[in-house]
Amino acid sequence: MSNPMPAKELGIALIGTGFMGKCHAMAWRNVATVFGGAHPRLEILSDVTDEAAKHFATQFGFARGTTNWQEAVTDPKVDIVSITAPNGMHRPMAEAALKAGKHVWLEKPMALTLADANAMAELAQASDGQKTILGYNYLRSPAFQSARKLIADGVIGKPMAFRGVYDEDYSADPLLPWSWRMTHEGGGLGALGDLGCHLVSQMVALMGPVSEIVAQTQIVVPTRPSPDGPKSVENEDSAMALLRFTSGAQGSFATSRVARGRKCRLQWEVHGTEGTIVFDQENMNELWLHRAGEAGLTRHLTGPDQPDFAAFCPAPGHNFGFNEQKTIEARDLLSAITGGPACGPDFSQGLEIEKIIHAMATSNGTLVRIER
Amino acid sequence: MSNPMPAKELGIALIGTGFMGKCHAMAWRNVATVFGGAHPRLEILSDVTDEAAKHFATQFGFARGTTNWQEAVTDPKVDIVSITAPNGMHRPMAEAALKAGKHVWLEKPMALTLADANAMAELAQASDGQKTILGYNYLRSPAFQSARKLIADGVIGKPMAFRGVYDEDYSADPLLPWSWRMTHEGGGLGALGDLGCHLVSQMVALMGPVSEIVAQTQIVVPTRPSPDGPKSVENEDSAMALLRFTSGAQGSFATSRVARGRKCRLQWEVHGTEGTIVFDQENMNELWLHRAGEAGLTRHLTGPDQPDFAAFCPAPGHNFGFNEQKTIEARDLLSAITGGPACGPDFSQGLEIEKIIHAMATSNGTLVRIER
Amino acid sequence: MSNPMPAKELGIALIGTGFMGKCHAMAWRNVATVFGGAHPRLEILSDVTDEAAKHFATQFGFARGTTNWQEAVTDPKVDIVSITAPNGMHRPMAEAALKAGKHVWLEKPMALTLADANAMAELAQASDGQKTILGYNYLRSPAFQSARKLIADGVIGKPMAFRGVYDEDYSADPLLPWSWRMTHEGGGLGALGDLGCHLVSQMVALMGPVSEIVAQTQIVVPTRPSPDGPKSVENEDSAMALLRFTSGAQGSFATSRVARGRKCRLQWEVHGTEGTIVFDQENMNELWLHRAGEAGLTRHLTGPDQPDFAAFCPAPGHNFGFNEQKTIEARDLLSAITGGPACGPDFSQGLEIEKIIHAMATSNGTLVRIER
Amino acid sequence: MSNPMPAKELGIALIGTGFMGKCHAMAWRNVATVFGGAHPRLEILSDVTDEAAKHFATQFGFARGTTNWQEAVTDPKVDIVSITAPNGMHRPMAEAALKAGKHVWLEKPMALTLADANAMAELAQASDGQKTILGYNYLRSPAFQSARKLIADGVIGKPMAFRGVYDEDYSADPLLPWSWRMTHEGGGLGALGDLGCHLVSQMVALMGPVSEIVAQTQIVVPTRPSPDGPKSVENEDSAMALLRFTSGAQGSFATSRVARGRKCRLQWEVHGTEGTIVFDQENMNELWLHRAGEAGLTRHLTGPDQPDFAAFCPAPGHNFGFNEQKTIEARDLLSAITGGPACGPDFSQGLEIEKIIHAMATSNGTLVRIER
Repeated sequence: MSNPMPAKELGIALIGTGFMGKCHAMAWRNVATVFGGAHPRLEILSDVTDEAAKHFATQFGFARGTTNWQEAVTDPKVDIVSITAPNGMHRPMAEAALKAGKHVWLEKPMALTLADANAMAELAQASDGQKTILGYNYLRSPAFQSARKLIADGVIGKPMAFRGVYDEDYSADPLLPWSWRMTHEGGGLGALGDLGCHLVSQMVALMGPVSEIVAQTQIVVPTRPSPDGPKSVENEDSAMALLRFTSGAQGSFATSRVARGRKCRLQWEVHGTEGTIVFDQENMNELWLHRAGEAGLTRHLTGPDQPDFAAFCPAPGHNFGFNEQKTIEARDLLSAITGGPACGPDFSQGLEIEKIIHAMATSNGTLVRIER
Repeated sequence: MSNPMPAKELGIALIGTGFMGKCHAMAWRNVATVFGGAHPRLEILSDVTDEAAKHFATQFGFARGTTNWQEAVTDPKVDIVSITAPNGMHRPMAEAALKAGKHVWLEKPMALTLADANAMAELAQASDGQKTILGYNYLRSPAFQSARKLIADGVIGKPMAFRGVYDEDYSADPLLPWSWRMTHEGGGLGALGDLGCHLVSQMVALMGPVSEIVAQTQIVVPTRPSPDGPKSVENEDSAMALLRFTSGAQGSFATSRVARGRKCRLQWEVHGTEGTIVFDQENMNELWLHRAGEAGLTRHLTGPDQPDFAAFCPAPGHNFGFNEQKTIEARDLLSAITGGPACGPDFSQGLEIEKIIHAMATSNGTLVRIER
Repeated sequence: MSNPMPAKELGIALIGTGFMGKCHAMAWRNVATVFGGAHPRLEILSDVTDEAAKHFATQFGFARGTTNWQEAVTDPKVDIVSITAPNGMHRPMAEAALKAGKHVWLEKPMALTLADANAMAELAQASDGQKTILGYNYLRSPAFQSARKLIADGVIGKPMAFRGVYDEDYSADPLLPWSWRMTHEGGGLGALGDLGCHLVSQMVALMGPVSEIVAQTQIVVPTRPSPDGPKSVENEDSAMALLRFTSGAQGSFATSRVARGRKCRLQWEVHGTEGTIVFDQENMNELWLHRAGEAGLTRHLTGPDQPDFAAFCPAPGHNFGFNEQKTIEARDLLSAITGGPACGPDFSQGLEIEKIIHAMATSNGTLVRIER
Repeated sequence: MSNPMPAKELGIALIGTGFMGKCHAMAWRNVATVFGGAHPRLEILSDVTDEAAKHFATQFGFARGTTNWQEAVTDPKVDIVSITAPNGMHRPMAEAALKAGKHVWLEKPMALTLADANAMAELAQASDGQKTILGYNYLRSPAFQSARKLIADGVIGKPMAFRGVYDEDYSADPLLPWSWRMTHEGGGLGALGDLGCHLVSQMVALMGPVSEIVAQTQIVVPTRPSPDGPKSVENEDSAMALLRFTSGAQGSFATSRVARGRKCRLQWEVHGTEGTIVFDQENMNELWLHRAGEAGLTRHLTGPDQPDFAAFCPAPGHNFGFNEQKTIEARDLLSAITGGPACGPDFSQGLEIEKIIHAMATSNGTLVRIER
């Protein structure tokens, strides 16, 4: 089998119990049911209050809870640490876990700053063979994996152009209160850090490395209400970029957190010399493919002919879900630990993504070369 | 909370490990993680060979495996029996479980014959307060629940017309070998039993009881290859029907297992006096709604404003999956056992569905009244 | 060329200047520009008032106007009469034109009653080689012609099932005033006469003759306001039917004039043994085709590879319009007059359509055989 | 009426009988039928051979044909000259027509070079009140006009971001022979001149003037076969750009003539502070609108509630066609001549479009300011 699963149970620590925390928990609980191998041992869960830690340890089926994340990342019974805490905690937590000899599953974005991401990548590189993987879950859907494979197999010829957007509207309401997440220090990047990095992860997976970028950003809602009166939003509500890839292909890129009516529009298309592939995460079970000589685009519903779907369901057109992406992500990590293929994006590859989004954030209409 | 969850763990037996067996297992493993309450205790799993029973007990996280389903349904540590065995086993298994005092979660269709379904409904009715629920999973998606609620709340006025289809193409290939599933004795109904009953379950949930039916069926591939030469297909490849509801509304209905290119097209629309709702399970995260005075149909992406979604994910447009429907089904059963709202379709409601599909199977162009 | 065009100009009379009257006028003005041949001579236009007759004769470019339709249909300079008057006038006008030796282009439905349609078909049959054509314009779009050809060429194998609807919402508002069009005597059939007959025209073109029907109708808004108080609606707001075709195929059929949010949803699909075709007139430039072995449905945008499109535009994906269907209809009639292929539906074929919709109107849940 | 139509017939000369030539002819023949006013007098048609000139003069209903375009543009009976000749002829023909005192309807792009466009704009500016209009037909569809009006009326708040593409695949096949159209001297710009300018025309109509551009272009098929062996393609197969508008809004822009499977994908969206509008010319009868507080995007089918549609058809959802856009364009010109609102883009506005596409063609990743 191409993805070996662990013969012995591995101990899991989970930090954070919000959106992604619960998503990691569901993945850990089902990964062996879906893919086989030993079930992970859900060892310890960390949350900010004692009550929450206990409550969610019980709900998610972990052996115990703690408010001390250092305890969680260093527990000798723990092999893998799932980090889903706020972005500003990513570096200290990931570093502590790596230093304690753990494998790390870290939610994106890697860190608040490029310097942080760089330090983390270096530490991971120097670690004792520990695996790192970033939570770029959209890379895992059967449709996306299929698209990636179709391109790699040359089905659309040489990929020449990428067009991608990732739009949501969670910040569109100007009455949404100000938060520290909208500052450089507290939240790092804006739409680029939250959404854009996902699109970059897919773009790079499909098109290969980026060599040059020109970008512009925009703050659509410059101030937001706070108890102390209106406060300034520092990070971008949206960004747009042009790209050149080292392959010679070109790309256009846009992301927004203020795109009214868009909920998870991670939408892209790749134009190859012999065909076109189109995808939209809002309909993540549809992949659209055109090959030279065909009449138009054909709708491919997700099914067992696409990677990893059959382990969840034998019937095509029976929708794969957002959360199930995370189960594949967990499998990828377990499999890499068990001697299977390298999982990614690891911290080195994640650093590449960070370089790109930070270049977009600072380009201001000027061409930036991505050093490597 | 409207759906109380068990304070103490309940013991689970699972019979069958195929498509639906695995789906039940995933649901049992995640139901408490998603909705809270005590985690079910996965007690015993039954499969046809000793090897399979052991293998899947380990993979799905059950305490032990058996080849003796009677043992599974009578085990004193078991409170709930999940039955996902072939349709011909539904009656004996469900009856044994009910007689052993267990709650029963049974996959659809209820049974091979109306007589069987009737007997099962009577037994359940006479049971000691045990809950029964049939695996009409498509009733559970947030989009469907939302549609049902919109109609119940009068958002589209009085529902006057239903138009529904459920089409797949798994039997379209005429070279697909003959199987006992294609006989009356072995498989019962054809497309109606496999697909049509799902559409009926949704139709009745949206429109209320059916009073009259006229239908016609079709065998598109009359013989299929077998090692002994071509053999006859006995049950219908497709069916079409007209319906009258006791409300006075009318309906049209069609189902096919030979509809080329369709994978899970469980598609319907309801025309009300003040609006229209449209749904297609192949894009199960989209609900289309039109209300009088609006320009056209509006796309509602699944999100936390729809029932039960928020327990899985706080972000709208992040696709809900087919398998997650089953987690809600498990919750519905657990909640009913814990004193929450009645879960359904129970065996009595399931019998209504059976009456309708059997009437369709035998109408042959003649009007049939549904007795109640 | 397969469709010869007239070498000499033919004289045209047009009766009626509303929706369809203007549509005929545009078609007559552009048919030779698009398809070649002698331009028709726009001879005489008839409307109910003198002012309107003059006004529209000028606007539509006719030589003169009249309030006397008999004059128009008997004018010796007239070769072809376009009849777009209210349905109740179809029989007398068409008969007068036929008796005067004219070719007749008549809007659908043929007549208010089956008896009228029958008489008209007989008169046309007995005429001196004059051509008749009914305004079933949806048969003319390049996408529909392409679908018809794909089926005829066996691209989807043997057509086994038809599923069709034609829904609009022009009568959905219960405050829409009562009119004589809603009576049997004044308006004939309701949704079936207005919309359903179009769907029948396409269905028969795709599937061949109908042998048996079971249908039910519905009046959703039973009374409507009038200056004299509420008055009863006599003809159907919607209808649903099951059909058997002489080929052995089966069909389901529905039409409604009270389907909120639907504007021109003439939507159908044909399931063949080797593929599926899907069409919706609201997106009349898209045809969806699936063939066995392909992944899903492929979108075929209207283009010069489809019949008759290239005469309008050489570029694919450049939308063909509703009105342009009528230009093809005019061409079909001119070409038939010039010795080209028979045009249709002529009055005999139109009578078949009338038989079907009247059978639907009167079935009331009972099987009706279509005599032929 | 807001768009007065001529009381007296105006004489028309038409140069060119290809794709656009026929389209102009159809428009001239139907403009008065649709909108009223005096029918234009189709005076003279010019084509390159005597045979073609005569043939098309007859087919399109012009009084006579000529091979001498100078004769056509100076004919004293001519008031308006329709120029649909190859791009390299646009300047001499338009200048001759203007000098002869004619109104000019010129197909896009204006000219091969910015210098030419500039000279033409100056001549038009200095003319004796003659009207000029460029063939940006996509501006005329009811859906586009409606979108423009919705934005102008503030329905989506302040427009902050534009995302647009115009993709076709007519040059995707690398075996498509080389032609002079692929050279700077013969064809001017590539995809930008052919397709991109259309997108610019819509973008500017929706968003207002552009202030800054960064762009990159790409030649995907660098050489193409010719009888003399492979020859170089000089102008761009695709282009991508970032834009800033003088309003402060931002935009991303892309166009390609090698986008496999795309036929007329002139697709854009505008994000406003209070809503979003989305359009795709391949489904030109659908406009998608979202307003703050609504659930998602709503599909608006073209209908009489949108500008100019009712003159063609009273029924919503009955598709407007590509060619009919041109009839509205003709009306706009006639109306401007008759004292109605200014029609556009005139040569001055067209020059703005040319500046933008030429800036895109030469930016090469560097920011370019649009002077005005």
